[in-house]
Amino acid sequence: MNDARRSISISPRGDAFRDECGVAAVFGHPEAAKMVYLALYALQHRGQEAAGIVSVEDEKMRRHAGTGHVAEIFREEALQALGGTHSIGHVRYSTAGESSRDNAQPLVMSHRRGPLAVAHNGNLVNAQEIRRRLERVGSIFRSTSDTEVLLHLVARSRAEGLPEALCEAIREIRGAYSLVICDQRRVIAVRDPHGFRPLSLGRLEQGRPVLASETCAFDLMGARFERDIEPGEVLVIGPDSEESSLFPLPKQQPHPCIFEYVYFSRPDSRVFGRSVGDIRRALGAQLASEHPAEADLVVPVPDSGVAAAIGYARGAGLPFDFGLVRNHYVGRTFIEPSQSIRHFGVKVKLNPVRSLMAGRRVVLVDDSLVRGTTMHKIVTMVKDAGAREVHVRISCPPTVSPCYYGVDTPRSEELIAANATIAEIREYIGADSLGYLSLDGMHRAVGGEIGEFCAACYTGDYPLAPTDFGRDASQDEFGGSGPEDLRQPGGGAMEETSG
Amino acid sequence: MNDARRSISISPRGDAFRDECGVAAVFGHPEAAKMVYLALYALQHRGQEAAGIVSVEDEKMRRHAGTGHVAEIFREEALQALGGTHSIGHVRYSTAGESSRDNAQPLVMSHRRGPLAVAHNGNLVNAQEIRRRLERVGSIFRSTSDTEVLLHLVARSRAEGLPEALCEAIREIRGAYSLVICDQRRVIAVRDPHGFRPLSLGRLEQGRPVLASETCAFDLMGARFERDIEPGEVLVIGPDSEESSLFPLPKQQPHPCIFEYVYFSRPDSRVFGRSVGDIRRALGAQLASEHPAEADLVVPVPDSGVAAAIGYARGAGLPFDFGLVRNHYVGRTFIEPSQSIRHFGVKVKLNPVRSLMAGRRVVLVDDSLVRGTTMHKIVTMVKDAGAREVHVRISCPPTVSPCYYGVDTPRSEELIAANATIAEIREYIGADSLGYLSLDGMHRAVGGEIGEFCAACYTGDYPLAPTDFGRDASQDEFGGSGPEDLRQPGGGAMEETSG
Amino acid sequence: MNDARRSISISPRGDAFRDECGVAAVFGHPEAAKMVYLALYALQHRGQEAAGIVSVEDEKMRRHAGTGHVAEIFREEALQALGGTHSIGHVRYSTAGESSRDNAQPLVMSHRRGPLAVAHNGNLVNAQEIRRRLERVGSIFRSTSDTEVLLHLVARSRAEGLPEALCEAIREIRGAYSLVICDQRRVIAVRDPHGFRPLSLGRLEQGRPVLASETCAFDLMGARFERDIEPGEVLVIGPDSEESSLFPLPKQQPHPCIFEYVYFSRPDSRVFGRSVGDIRRALGAQLASEHPAEADLVVPVPDSGVAAAIGYARGAGLPFDFGLVRNHYVGRTFIEPSQSIRHFGVKVKLNPVRSLMAGRRVVLVDDSLVRGTTMHKIVTMVKDAGAREVHVRISCPPTVSPCYYGVDTPRSEELIAANATIAEIREYIGADSLGYLSLDGMHRAVGGEIGEFCAACYTGDYPLAPTDFGRDASQDEFGGSGPEDLRQPGGGAMEETSG
Amino acid sequence: MNDARRSISISPRGDAFRDECGVAAVFGHPEAAKMVYLALYALQHRGQEAAGIVSVEDEKMRRHAGTGHVAEIFREEALQALGGTHSIGHVRYSTAGESSRDNAQPLVMSHRRGPLAVAHNGNLVNAQEIRRRLERVGSIFRSTSDTEVLLHLVARSRAEGLPEALCEAIREIRGAYSLVICDQRRVIAVRDPHGFRPLSLGRLEQGRPVLASETCAFDLMGARFERDIEPGEVLVIGPDSEESSLFPLPKQQPHPCIFEYVYFSRPDSRVFGRSVGDIRRALGAQLASEHPAEADLVVPVPDSGVAAAIGYARGAGLPFDFGLVRNHYVGRTFIEPSQSIRHFGVKVKLNPVRSLMAGRRVVLVDDSLVRGTTMHKIVTMVKDAGAREVHVRISCPPTVSPCYYGVDTPRSEELIAANATIAEIREYIGADSLGYLSLDGMHRAVGGEIGEFCAACYTGDYPLAPTDFGRDASQDEFGGSGPEDLRQPGGGAMEETSG
Repeated sequence: MNDARRSISISPRGDAFRDECGVAAVFGHPEAAKMVYLALYALQHRGQEAAGIVSVEDEKMRRHAGTGHVAEIFREEALQALGGTHSIGHVRYSTAGESSRDNAQPLVMSHRRGPLAVAHNGNLVNAQEIRRRLERVGSIFRSTSDTEVLLHLVARSRAEGLPEALCEAIREIRGAYSLVICDQRRVIAVRDPHGFRPLSLGRLEQGRPVLASETCAFDLMGARFERDIEPGEVLVIGPDSEESSLFPLPKQQPHPCIFEYVYFSRPDSRVFGRSVGDIRRALGAQLASEHPAEADLVVPVPDSGVAAAIGYARGAGLPFDFGLVRNHYVGRTFIEPSQSIRHFGVKVKLNPVRSLMAGRRVVLVDDSLVRGTTMHKIVTMVKDAGAREVHVRISCPPTVSPCYYGVDTPRSEELIAANATIAEIREYIGADSLGYLSLDGMHRAVGGEIGEFCAACYTGDYPLAPTDFGRDASQDEFGGSGPEDLRQPGGGAMEETSG
Repeated sequence: MNDARRSISISPRGDAFRDECGVAAVFGHPEAAKMVYLALYALQHRGQEAAGIVSVEDEKMRRHAGTGHVAEIFREEALQALGGTHSIGHVRYSTAGESSRDNAQPLVMSHRRGPLAVAHNGNLVNAQEIRRRLERVGSIFRSTSDTEVLLHLVARSRAEGLPEALCEAIREIRGAYSLVICDQRRVIAVRDPHGFRPLSLGRLEQGRPVLASETCAFDLMGARFERDIEPGEVLVIGPDSEESSLFPLPKQQPHPCIFEYVYFSRPDSRVFGRSVGDIRRALGAQLASEHPAEADLVVPVPDSGVAAAIGYARGAGLPFDFGLVRNHYVGRTFIEPSQSIRHFGVKVKLNPVRSLMAGRRVVLVDDSLVRGTTMHKIVTMVKDAGAREVHVRISCPPTVSPCYYGVDTPRSEELIAANATIAEIREYIGADSLGYLSLDGMHRAVGGEIGEFCAACYTGDYPLAPTDFGRDASQDEFGGSGPEDLRQPGGGAMEETSG
Repeated sequence: MNDARRSISISPRGDAFRDECGVAAVFGHPEAAKMVYLALYALQHRGQEAAGIVSVEDEKMRRHAGTGHVAEIFREEALQALGGTHSIGHVRYSTAGESSRDNAQPLVMSHRRGPLAVAHNGNLVNAQEIRRRLERVGSIFRSTSDTEVLLHLVARSRAEGLPEALCEAIREIRGAYSLVICDQRRVIAVRDPHGFRPLSLGRLEQGRPVLASETCAFDLMGARFERDIEPGEVLVIGPDSEESSLFPLPKQQPHPCIFEYVYFSRPDSRVFGRSVGDIRRALGAQLASEHPAEADLVVPVPDSGVAAAIGYARGAGLPFDFGLVRNHYVGRTFIEPSQSIRHFGVKVKLNPVRSLMAGRRVVLVDDSLVRGTTMHKIVTMVKDAGAREVHVRISCPPTVSPCYYGVDTPRSEELIAANATIAEIREYIGADSLGYLSLDGMHRAVGGEIGEFCAACYTGDYPLAPTDFGRDASQDEFGGSGPEDLRQPGGGAMEETSG
Repeated sequence: MNDARRSISISPRGDAFRDECGVAAVFGHPEAAKMVYLALYALQHRGQEAAGIVSVEDEKMRRHAGTGHVAEIFREEALQALGGTHSIGHVRYSTAGESSRDNAQPLVMSHRRGPLAVAHNGNLVNAQEIRRRLERVGSIFRSTSDTEVLLHLVARSRAEGLPEALCEAIREIRGAYSLVICDQRRVIAVRDPHGFRPLSLGRLEQGRPVLASETCAFDLMGARFERDIEPGEVLVIGPDSEESSLFPLPKQQPHPCIFEYVYFSRPDSRVFGRSVGDIRRALGAQLASEHPAEADLVVPVPDSGVAAAIGYARGAGLPFDFGLVRNHYVGRTFIEPSQSIRHFGVKVKLNPVRSLMAGRRVVLVDDSLVRGTTMHKIVTMVKDAGAREVHVRISCPPTVSPCYYGVDTPRSEELIAANATIAEIREYIGADSLGYLSLDGMHRAVGGEIGEFCAACYTGDYPLAPTDFGRDASQDEFGGSGPEDLRQPGGGAMEETSG
């Protein structure tokens, strides 16, 4: 207890949105699990705390999963054991300290059609409701994951085949789901009718199909991007490499998540048909035109603010430079001296370059502002390094509402923009000026109409009512691919660790 | 593959019965999980490859489980995290190399009555049958354990409370089951109507109830033995420390497992109302009267044959000594030189004392003879050490049939006594004479009538027909608290590892 | 062996100079070891494979050392155990797979003046010679480190005190050495008369002295830079916080290593009195004036080429952007699919952004070109991504000679610039043009005269003859803070691993 | 700190003599290191906390060492890496918590004759004195081991070859030393002229020589015992398998350690020409004749008291049985409940069998009594289990003096027999009677004259004056193969841990 005070957790983005999840699948490749491993490696930024791969060899399903980075979890031996020609995988964020094995993805179960594995990016908004209904008729749950609800629905379907059962099941669920699924002979990809989260189809040599949350995974696998899985599509691959698309749900207006552009996806990915890096620079340029600054230098908050800062600098005609140097060797925890050092937590990750900033008027560009505590420390640090003025520019509108579709946002109470005016925020972070990109400007940079994307985190306008949640319920209680600590009807909860 | 040739697995008893399981529970103690840990520690001999503890604190259920010995799995930190005043635990054998997390016991699930945990010693004989039926109506299985079947039956019961649902569920299952179960407010103990496996009730100071497979666990916990859980009894403890016994099934002739006396239980335990050590010495004395030998020395095969050898020596009036010294530092695997050494596998564990045996006529006493390969090596080793004659005596009848009630026996094809005459066995192991205890003599030593115990492994007389199994199906395919690799109706299987 | 083919090592800079070492020390601080830990953390880029800290409490010396990153080696428990008010530390590169514990730094020994610890950045050029001499008079060596030679000289000195003995010892050694040393009551800093490697003095609050290879360590510790340790200076701190400077060697023309500016040091450090980042941008700008390019975009090879690329872009008036995205989650090893993927090794670390580069004429800026193999892959990858032309610019002159003063360079045979003309190199890497900065231009950007720095790697002009080495002997055989596998006079060698 | 209160250390023999060391060597075998591994495995009882192996392949020396049991330290991979045809190894006790790598044996160093490795069983009594002398002339010490002193003497010898230098060196040292040494082409065995500790020569097939502390190692290796290395002998094996014996020291009256028979050696070993098991039974029989008891049962304190108890039972004509059952799964540490349980520490290891002891008069036999605290708990436990009377019998005389020759005994202050009369001890342990074997009776059982063995721990009569130690200095300060924490002349000390 005493000691805990002295060791602080340094998450890759402390005061920030926690990452969500990434999924990948390969069919018909002699080293399927290794290819999925490559994909997860490229998708590591979407979920840095746990990963799992399932592969099928001779109709036998094997899983290897663990906590940590992909490169730590999968060693040669583990990958060799994952034989077979089709495989699916998952990377995820998981609450620190809780390594709930039963929630580890891909989830694996056996039912009358044989073994089945599912990897899920997104979040169902009526999982609790269905779960209560299923429990009333005698279902048991081994995990607290909303994904397990889907497995139950598949198992209870009277349909003969898996694809048909799956179509039945997704008629009952609502929410965000980009899924990759495998059984003994097939791989299936599913994307919800809103298309909240991305999911793309690529081709390896000889036309072997691969699936991944982002196209940067294809680059590492040596695959070619073919197309996005369409909102509402169920793509069945197999048993004999044949592919067929089902659309079991009525067509709807899709609402892909605009935040994938702002923060989540890698700049070298194409997401929802557009280059993420291009959009980020456009966001920065648009920001420069909306909120210019009399300044000498544009400095990004690395690494997330870099592309927008380049766009801003270019738009504003100002020099761009790395006034903050990031330490890339940051580990999971860091031992703090008890004699506290000013802005210690931020210093571990970022160091200001005095020679660049002393005496200068600096524009600091970042992609979002969550609680504001980190930005306060950065602004102070930059001023301590001699900056004459600090102008903070954020490449999206103020974040005011939590996400129910798979992004792990803090509760509204913790979102500074939901509780303070722009002026108050500027005051709090200590900047000389503060500018957020407008909703309109964001859509212009992205190249879409207002309403074309889900932008609920900026507007509170939810395309799909979250029935599981009360007003402003947050992801901390029920979210992502699985809350660790679901309160039971009877008032209880399950938790577990494994040695 | 190549290297594998050179490293051999040294299980504590290689050519032997693999251990079964042990269970324990504590209710109303401020350090419940620590007390269960002590119990598992004392029960380690019943299952040396995996262990788990579940505890309940503030209606929240936590599990910690792992593979290895109890002392390795549960460190201070893990035990501190397992707070609360009631707790259950499990030790088990698990197939080497497969650390199927989903089969780890206690099994935990959530259903409409809240979270529930079960630890199971024994084996159901109609689990497959029920499982197929449940799958047909849409149940999903996360493990291949027969115990999960029980959880489904409890969940599907319309009964309001857990005790009632449990009573309903056990009306459907058949087989061997000594169970400890906990939910948010209760601990429940169940023993099948045949009473195949032991389960005892003890008291800590202030009358706090504890449950354990053997009484040696009470000794370490500082508890006093009160009584055995009766065959067919469902003992409900809680919510408020009240205790009540239910007997939901029609009374039956019990058949406790006689093999618990011969091999499984610790000599310092009382099992089924009798001292195991006393019985083992009586088995040895009876053996001496049935199969005397003209010899100079009685030598046990350590450690399992020690008590019977003492009984034999005393009965025969011969000196007893440790002619075979056991190496207690034997690890999980042992690196074998490629230049093979005579009787290497046995030498790692046992070393003959030449000064004791040279020129002597030796009676070698062991408690069982499974495949005969190990005994062949031991007899040769003892002769190499100079013994003039070697007379092998086994303190039970020939083992001819597999067990379906929770003991992991080899298939009939591998049981030497099912496939060879006594004379052939003697010839094979190279002994000068060989004597097995008679069925009658065994019962006399135990102090019971023939038919009072389950002695099916010696007689083939099964008190309960194993419907899941074909003729002579073995535990390697479906057994213990869970086969790792259950073939699915669809022909598939699940397997998993965790990093 | 077979498997080894499939797992490739991904060092942070594969085809590159391996890092050298970093040292740090603290005196008179209640959490001395924790402050040294912070310093090592900031110096991680100077040696990413091993680290160690020694601290002194109540005249008792303790060491904790290990392989891996600083944050992995030093956990709370280890740091708590390193009590006391003075401490020294070391980060280093070590040959993969060989974790020679006896070479771990700080080296600790005991001699007649008590225990002594030394951390060394640099390389002695006459260590072998002295070692042979010492062995002839009966010295024994526990490691193959050149640093151990220094310890022997100190031990054999007749001088009474440590500072005097140290002064005697350094009269015998030649080479590059920035040392921090501690005994029971003092910390001593030493810099060789050529001043090859940096070493700076800073102050914590209350004037407590700290020492570190680079000033970025002071930033994280919350210390203020005071001055560089002068070439040839022996700074003795203690026993009672008094500080005195000795200059035991005749004054010489210093030759600080110019490569510290080009590659080694962090851009936010001040080294040899100048800002590293400023110099790197100046190198880029100078490069732009010497080797302009008709191009659309300047793209750095991240991370080392970023500052020079910004300078180049600014100098050339061209847009700057991250056309290559770096994956920061790269682990130590990476499992390669056996079905080889084009440019796999580079792809794991870098991914080209097609949308930025397609159809464009790209200037690729990096800080050095060692074997050329990596640059060949990058150029091909950039062309595959659609770049119309690729113009490679290197922010220093061609590297033609190995370093004997502590930088782990490949042998001359492996240095492409030592074996090929510029035209041939351009041809090999597949670039449309190739430009290296001139020696003169490099000095102009650095702001010094030719001859003021050691630039032997570019000129072959060694300020100090390397007597231990034959012509072009390389660091692979005897270098850094210790080769792992020193051939003995008798032809033998020592190697060790630890479990 | 707080938590530490709750986890207790369970050493295999808590209140007991800590084990000493074991050594082994092999020459001319294609799998030399694997054979040494087998030997260490068999010698595990002589040192259970650390082990190391050195092998030589192509004149290159490799070491693998670690803490823990032999089977944990040496995995397939580590053994494969230890190629070559000659090898030496060491097992040792090491102070808990201090894993001083630099003290790990075999010690390896390089000197002018090339690399050299030494494994040492025993303790030098003038190491400190020589060390001080060597430090005065400039030697440095990397460890606190007395063995390093020997290496320095070898290095400083002017003799050309290693055997000659070694002969010179051992002329300077005094104390107990059974050594195995290897350089690039030889294995050398040395036993001090007093022959304190055992060391035997055996032969593998084809006459390949092997060396080990006890003959039980030969049994596992498949080797044949040939002879003991003689006191004062230096046996040189190699370079080309030739063997020659040197006797560089004047012949002396040997004094082999009688305690090897009483406690250390395995009962299946031959030591100093006699069977250890035979002697232990003789000690028990002699004890029965000296201290008979009116009793019903003879019970050993397992495992060390078993052989003597069998001898006692046989001598006294009383039945022998295991009234105390030992738990062999005891791990390194054990988590204690905070609500303390009576005699907890002993209960973890031993459980009394009530059915055997209730109402009986019990003779408890053990091989030694150190502090008496454990025996006090055992006697109380046995009485709690219902024993009517408890008669304690110890199979050696009272232990009154510490050992300076390699056995880790407590200081005199902690030896109960050095501070209390027999009557007081009986009172303290709570026994109804207490009998120690007489000095005379011990020698009779061993079959030797008084004075033939070193029995200093029983008599205080030291064959060799311990100049390094003051009166009653204990092994805690300077002992075994190396104290961890040697106070320096200057008052300091070295300590280290490794991550």
